[in-house]
Amino acid sequence: MIKAGIFGATGYTGWELVKILQRHPQAEIGFVTSTSQAERPLSTIYPTAPDLILVAPQDAPLNEVDVAFLCLPHGAAAETAVTCLNAGLTVIDLSADFRLRDVAAYEQWYKTIHPAPELLETAVYGLTEFARSQLPGAKLIANPGCYPTSILLAAQPLLAADAIAGTLIVDSKSGVSGAGRSPKQNTHFVEVADNFSPYNIGQVHRHWPEIVQGLGFWHASPPDLVFSPHLLPVPRGILSTIYAPLKPGWQLSELHQLFSETYADEPFVQVLPLGSLATLAHVNYTNRCAIGLAQAGDTLIVTSAIDNLIKGAAGQAVQNMNVALGLKETAGLE
Amino acid sequence: MIKAGIFGATGYTGWELVKILQRHPQAEIGFVTSTSQAERPLSTIYPTAPDLILVAPQDAPLNEVDVAFLCLPHGAAAETAVTCLNAGLTVIDLSADFRLRDVAAYEQWYKTIHPAPELLETAVYGLTEFARSQLPGAKLIANPGCYPTSILLAAQPLLAADAIAGTLIVDSKSGVSGAGRSPKQNTHFVEVADNFSPYNIGQVHRHWPEIVQGLGFWHASPPDLVFSPHLLPVPRGILSTIYAPLKPGWQLSELHQLFSETYADEPFVQVLPLGSLATLAHVNYTNRCAIGLAQAGDTLIVTSAIDNLIKGAAGQAVQNMNVALGLKETAGLE
Amino acid sequence: MIKAGIFGATGYTGWELVKILQRHPQAEIGFVTSTSQAERPLSTIYPTAPDLILVAPQDAPLNEVDVAFLCLPHGAAAETAVTCLNAGLTVIDLSADFRLRDVAAYEQWYKTIHPAPELLETAVYGLTEFARSQLPGAKLIANPGCYPTSILLAAQPLLAADAIAGTLIVDSKSGVSGAGRSPKQNTHFVEVADNFSPYNIGQVHRHWPEIVQGLGFWHASPPDLVFSPHLLPVPRGILSTIYAPLKPGWQLSELHQLFSETYADEPFVQVLPLGSLATLAHVNYTNRCAIGLAQAGDTLIVTSAIDNLIKGAAGQAVQNMNVALGLKETAGLE
Amino acid sequence: MIKAGIFGATGYTGWELVKILQRHPQAEIGFVTSTSQAERPLSTIYPTAPDLILVAPQDAPLNEVDVAFLCLPHGAAAETAVTCLNAGLTVIDLSADFRLRDVAAYEQWYKTIHPAPELLETAVYGLTEFARSQLPGAKLIANPGCYPTSILLAAQPLLAADAIAGTLIVDSKSGVSGAGRSPKQNTHFVEVADNFSPYNIGQVHRHWPEIVQGLGFWHASPPDLVFSPHLLPVPRGILSTIYAPLKPGWQLSELHQLFSETYADEPFVQVLPLGSLATLAHVNYTNRCAIGLAQAGDTLIVTSAIDNLIKGAAGQAVQNMNVALGLKETAGLE
Repeated sequence: MIKAGIFGATGYTGWELVKILQRHPQAEIGFVTSTSQAERPLSTIYPTAPDLILVAPQDAPLNEVDVAFLCLPHGAAAETAVTCLNAGLTVIDLSADFRLRDVAAYEQWYKTIHPAPELLETAVYGLTEFARSQLPGAKLIANPGCYPTSILLAAQPLLAADAIAGTLIVDSKSGVSGAGRSPKQNTHFVEVADNFSPYNIGQVHRHWPEIVQGLGFWHASPPDLVFSPHLLPVPRGILSTIYAPLKPGWQLSELHQLFSETYADEPFVQVLPLGSLATLAHVNYTNRCAIGLAQAGDTLIVTSAIDNLIKGAAGQAVQNMNVALGLKETAGLE
Repeated sequence: MIKAGIFGATGYTGWELVKILQRHPQAEIGFVTSTSQAERPLSTIYPTAPDLILVAPQDAPLNEVDVAFLCLPHGAAAETAVTCLNAGLTVIDLSADFRLRDVAAYEQWYKTIHPAPELLETAVYGLTEFARSQLPGAKLIANPGCYPTSILLAAQPLLAADAIAGTLIVDSKSGVSGAGRSPKQNTHFVEVADNFSPYNIGQVHRHWPEIVQGLGFWHASPPDLVFSPHLLPVPRGILSTIYAPLKPGWQLSELHQLFSETYADEPFVQVLPLGSLATLAHVNYTNRCAIGLAQAGDTLIVTSAIDNLIKGAAGQAVQNMNVALGLKETAGLE
Repeated sequence: MIKAGIFGATGYTGWELVKILQRHPQAEIGFVTSTSQAERPLSTIYPTAPDLILVAPQDAPLNEVDVAFLCLPHGAAAETAVTCLNAGLTVIDLSADFRLRDVAAYEQWYKTIHPAPELLETAVYGLTEFARSQLPGAKLIANPGCYPTSILLAAQPLLAADAIAGTLIVDSKSGVSGAGRSPKQNTHFVEVADNFSPYNIGQVHRHWPEIVQGLGFWHASPPDLVFSPHLLPVPRGILSTIYAPLKPGWQLSELHQLFSETYADEPFVQVLPLGSLATLAHVNYTNRCAIGLAQAGDTLIVTSAIDNLIKGAAGQAVQNMNVALGLKETAGLE
Repeated sequence: MIKAGIFGATGYTGWELVKILQRHPQAEIGFVTSTSQAERPLSTIYPTAPDLILVAPQDAPLNEVDVAFLCLPHGAAAETAVTCLNAGLTVIDLSADFRLRDVAAYEQWYKTIHPAPELLETAVYGLTEFARSQLPGAKLIANPGCYPTSILLAAQPLLAADAIAGTLIVDSKSGVSGAGRSPKQNTHFVEVADNFSPYNIGQVHRHWPEIVQGLGFWHASPPDLVFSPHLLPVPRGILSTIYAPLKPGWQLSELHQLFSETYADEPFVQVLPLGSLATLAHVNYTNRCAIGLAQAGDTLIVTSAIDNLIKGAAGQAVQNMNVALGLKETAGLE
């Protein structure tokens, strides 16, 4: 039985991890930490939580677990990663600290001195479907961001086939849990309900460089990227609508076949039949990414949906743990 | 033309006042204040706001206005009231500071030393429909709380007719704007959406003593009161479902006639036909209170709905201003 | 391995049954029926559904299953029950057809001639926690209504202790899935969102006689009942706020102990610590009933929450199946 | 005083017209029609409605009004238009019947034989800001669709300046009232809440040819159009996010100035300062279109928001009436 510790268990991502690990047949929870709520039961915050007492991070019994999940703010995550790696644990970091391989880019986008830049080259970027060769035995896994997960899974077949002729335009919409659990003016119920808002559109959101980096995994000269996130008045779920200008000659049926073949054996990527588009109802409360295609002239439109807290965070983190530790990839996730 | 100043214009109640006064044919806005946002335009916070620059409260030009609306926290409101009264203004206080006539009760429930207890006996409790004889010329008006407004309008005919035989049970549900604009954990979108929560039920909410006091206006020995508020996942609106045990002999048709007669000439109280119940859709974005009746054996059920920000706050405040200053009572409110 | 057939699998309750049975370690799905969608996959309607093809009810292979769940309109359910019982199946009926023991009451409230009144006396009313002695081996189980489940679990300890002094007042609020999946004007998104509505309040809702009957299980002269349902703008969940006038001498701490002892060994009834009230967040997506207590003078206030589709329907149905067939009561439900 | 009749007053658009005309200083309501609800008061459907009795369309007293608003299904609208024109009325049609100038395109997209093709060339396409020269005295006005209004107002400055270098990609999101008041499966509260869905994306939505036609008003060879609508879980509001590839040399500041100058004198188009993006909160419950700009490399991103029922339907219809009849353009709309 694998034992897992969760740093930062009171946030939405930590809580999803608790729920997934509870039903995982080959893993169990060793500890859950919280700085502000230490010594209180997790059920103080989430009424349906199992009996777990939060411990202060410095009191976490690292020697009792095999793997640590870091649901911490950037900066703090990297520091904790160092401690956990030194204690011999496998570390799965759900923050942004090890996603960007270029330390200068990290420091520019996150306005933080990276606490452990020497670890960047050892970290595996855990977009599981495309990281399987690197994950087994990996000690440090950077779990991808939620928007990047929805977008990169949708873009990979097009890049691998060299089908894109120009700028990739991505219009994404996310539920409010993506903004975290700390109350802010822009997540106040009255401000969000009945509203819909674009924010950080174009090339200024912190996930933009992560997506650009990811596009480069599959193509030497990836397309330019325009990425426009919007805040949806729902608790959870991301839908990305992706507009790809096609090189001459591509037909929708052929592209659909390409996507279908790419993901034929993937348990968590569902390519919808032609005529169906992805919606949040396809994916919420699951670890799935649903992908639906449509065409308009020379433009392919890919609709890609995930549950931001599961496939976009805690679910993919457990999927990565499963592959890294040699467990069944779908364990705990079905 | 009456000129009005609004203290605390960045909260939801202040913003409703701005909207109402903008369309008021006999009043206009003299100033709007904010401590934290001074010197910024109100449209920074509410994008549809007219061109108004917020001023710091201490810079408010009191000599340029006739009336001051106080949308301030309790304690601060009473202090500002003193300043405004000294400057000769009519003061309409939307906080709780002048609602309870008993200073000891105020200090017990609000855990605050009252800054101006000597003013309590001069303040008019502005439940407009029942304060018309006291309002003209009043200099200090305590605007009722939102829950009390929805409940007292529904209870008055029963108390006046001495129809209630036992404990009055009130089950109230309020939209989230009732909790104010400051972000808190319990108003975070993700915590409120898809949820429904009772809070401070029984006899522990601060509006309980205010309602008890109000019941005493119409009956020497008013019934005991149980008052249970709940948080609804909607931005605005209050529905109170009120259970009144009836003295022998009362029939629904007779009670309906009693309510209809009581409110026959009231522009803002709508007694629904038998068979109809009050809902938020009857009242939101209006200054109305809708009342619907049903009977179950010896229990009368009164459903009473208001928009908490309008009839429960800003709308009733303007209604009170109109009556106090001799304007048409419905001006700005239709 | 128990095999189960689901009649009426395209409604919300049928779909919850599918999800629960999919993860049930000792049961599996034999068939799913639909009249209007026969021969189509269930995933046409619910995108995350497993591979199941809907069959017309008359084509359901009764001889391949052990138990039939009926998620059908009243009337149709009783007719199907007869067929299934004749085929030797255990029948769990989620409609109202076998809940009321008095055929005259049924025909009055449901305006339908009962198709199988002779079966009424053999049906077990499956409020699981209080039906354990009757369930093992039962062939026909009437699954309780959603509102009655939330209310009866909360009322039983008070009735058993003879603690109630007068009329029981129940103010209930339900999410929209309780109204079924067929689109109607009053379930249109635009009519429900931002609104909140009482309906059928007092003693006129069809669940009223069912609750009255249930109260009579535990007390020879149960209290009068006032029952007021309201429509909440959420997809799922019921919260009932129950006002019980207490006989002299009862204290909150004593009543809390009474509830705690009554449900000490129950896996699916959670009595919250004093100071906590039940909310939808305590129960949604679980088979639990959460109960929280508060007192106001001589009135006990019980807050009781369930997920209407799970403990209020499909979950309790599986719980009943488990007990009836000698499986582990919590199987599939944790 | 202008008198107006409303055909189809029970739909959401008709009801908005009632509310606007009620507060219009120079117009009043002559009649409201409904086929299914004739002889009932409008308040049966909308509880806050004024005292108006619905009449059957064939009983509408055409000779008592000056202008007819048609809130009818396509096909029926054109037939009613003929009757009203013959009676000498000014007709403002909120259906699609007179929007497309090409009868063949109409019959292809709407799968209906046009009942009055001879009127098409006389109809004015009432995108008010760009139809002012044609509106005065016009007898038949085709009120634009909601999506086209949000998009065409945002695209016009770019087309007039010949700034667009390639395919225009429009990602639009609409509240549910855009789908009308008749209950359907895809507008059922439970299906819409917590969900977000693309539909008819690319070049297959009926508003696509209308937008293409509109783009052609300002440029001889308008860009290709990709148009992807999505259903938002809110009652009202449209946000269109528009991606325009720019011809070389255009800078954001210059484009912002272009938009600002184009709309400098427009009462109902608000170009937001650089740094601000349009949201539903900018426009709901107003007749405004809010436009915000951002740039990403060679792509201009225009965010454009309207209230679909007001600027996207009833509000623009009254704006058109005002201009057509020589009233103040903003009357009833501020």
